[in-house]
Amino acid sequence: MKILNFDIITIGNELLIGKILNTNMQFLAKAVTDLGGSVVRVTTVRDDVGEIVTAVKEAFDRETDFVITCGGLGPTFDDKTMEAISKAVEKPLVLNRTALEYMKKGHRLRHVGKTGVYELTPSRLKMAMLPQGSTPLFNPHGSASGVYLKNKGIRVVVLPGVPDEMQRIFVERVGPIIKDLVGDFFRREESLFARDIPESRVAPLIDEVMSEHPLVYIKSHPKREPEPMLELHFSTVSEKEEVADEDLVNEIDSSHRR
Amino acid sequence: MKILNFDIITIGNELLIGKILNTNMQFLAKAVTDLGGSVVRVTTVRDDVGEIVTAVKEAFDRETDFVITCGGLGPTFDDKTMEAISKAVEKPLVLNRTALEYMKKGHRLRHVGKTGVYELTPSRLKMAMLPQGSTPLFNPHGSASGVYLKNKGIRVVVLPGVPDEMQRIFVERVGPIIKDLVGDFFRREESLFARDIPESRVAPLIDEVMSEHPLVYIKSHPKREPEPMLELHFSTVSEKEEVADEDLVNEIDSSHRR
Repeated sequence: MKILNFDIITIGNELLIGKILNTNMQFLAKAVTDLGGSVVRVTTVRDDVGEIVTAVKEAFDRETDFVITCGGLGPTFDDKTMEAISKAVEKPLVLNRTALEYMKKGHRLRHVGKTGVYELTPSRLKMAMLPQGSTPLFNPHGSASGVYLKNKGIRVVVLPGVPDEMQRIFVERVGPIIKDLVGDFFRREESLFARDIPESRVAPLIDEVMSEHPLVYIKSHPKREPEPMLELHFSTVSEKEEVADEDLVNEIDSSHRR
Repeated sequence: MKILNFDIITIGNELLIGKILNTNMQFLAKAVTDLGGSVVRVTTVRDDVGEIVTAVKEAFDRETDFVITCGGLGPTFDDKTMEAISKAVEKPLVLNRTALEYMKKGHRLRHVGKTGVYELTPSRLKMAMLPQGSTPLFNPHGSASGVYLKNKGIRVVVLPGVPDEMQRIFVERVGPIIKDLVGDFFRREESLFARDIPESRVAPLIDEVMSEHPLVYIKSHPKREPEPMLELHFSTVSEKEEVADEDLVNEIDSSHRR
């Protein structure tokens, strides 16, 4: 198992005015975590070339292993992510023949039975202009391909913001790359629920148990629904299945005894 | 109307593993926008002093006007936000008598009819330790007060992550501060829905209309539910009500004509 740090950058004015919930953030954070990656930071910026370039470069400067951006790949003037990525990695935008083929293929798939020539409008052409050296990631649900590229050893994945497009590209094309890099590992997690105990009383016990079992992480979450209680969430990761199981069981036992 | 830039920092491991949706981010982004503020960036980091300090200092370095953090104020070992804020603003954590009174007052409110002494455990005491010079913000729903302070002209608000606690403190204590600073303004927004037109065909029209009406922002959102269509979202802000109305109407008219 290799520890890989991820930066996720979600892009879109609609996120910064609170018009929509950032469900893409949750999907990507969970998907990366499930594959054994460690998400260190999520940054959300508006559709502005300068803001996106800054966020991507900051992630590069922090020497993260993997940057995933989401949003801003469509055909309209306010889809500025590809231009920003091109600036951040210092590679010009060039017409990518594979991306163009993917767009035509996707269009055929989504408009089965319809005839007519695939019109290559400037807006469509824009979506086939990728930073030099990019590998396009086929998008079966939409026109804009995803992108995979490397910048000085840091992997960069650029995904559209429409949830089903993003999710399908992630699952089919990005997941396998991450899985290969991280290797095998086993995660175990379990929640205990405690009633009638204030978090402030449990806090010192958690501190004690965690310092005795440094491989297991405990997080307490006060809940109000369906009734007031405290969730204690235990989680651990290991290269070996039996070690992960044993660590978790030991720590939960140790918590129960207190 | 004064333009104020906001940085929102949401804190919590559970966000970075995708265990929960970042609903606090949406609430805060919408609330700030509704008050006339401009959210420039949302950063999400885990419960780690170093990560939080870095994120806060980066916001200071970008000379934002207002930093709002959310999460990590509870009594447990993994609630590290106050320690991080203290480091970022370079003020020591000191016992805040008002915060202590607020904790007792909140406890009485939430446990009406119960008797007994309010036990000042180390975990509770921790929640009354605030950076020197802080103004505590009363939390009627929980123990941890919010915090308001200034650092070299930049306003900082520190809120708990439990949604109803955060929302109540924001609405009662933070909103009025922002409203006073921003002053009067009028926002108008409207959505048009277009069927059977691909986004790539509308894109050049939007570009054209926006360059003629620079005060109105148009964003296109492809939708799949309940049926495939394109949402065109128009929005504008002005100090004067009639100017905002007129700008929006003109631009929508102009879009209709194309």
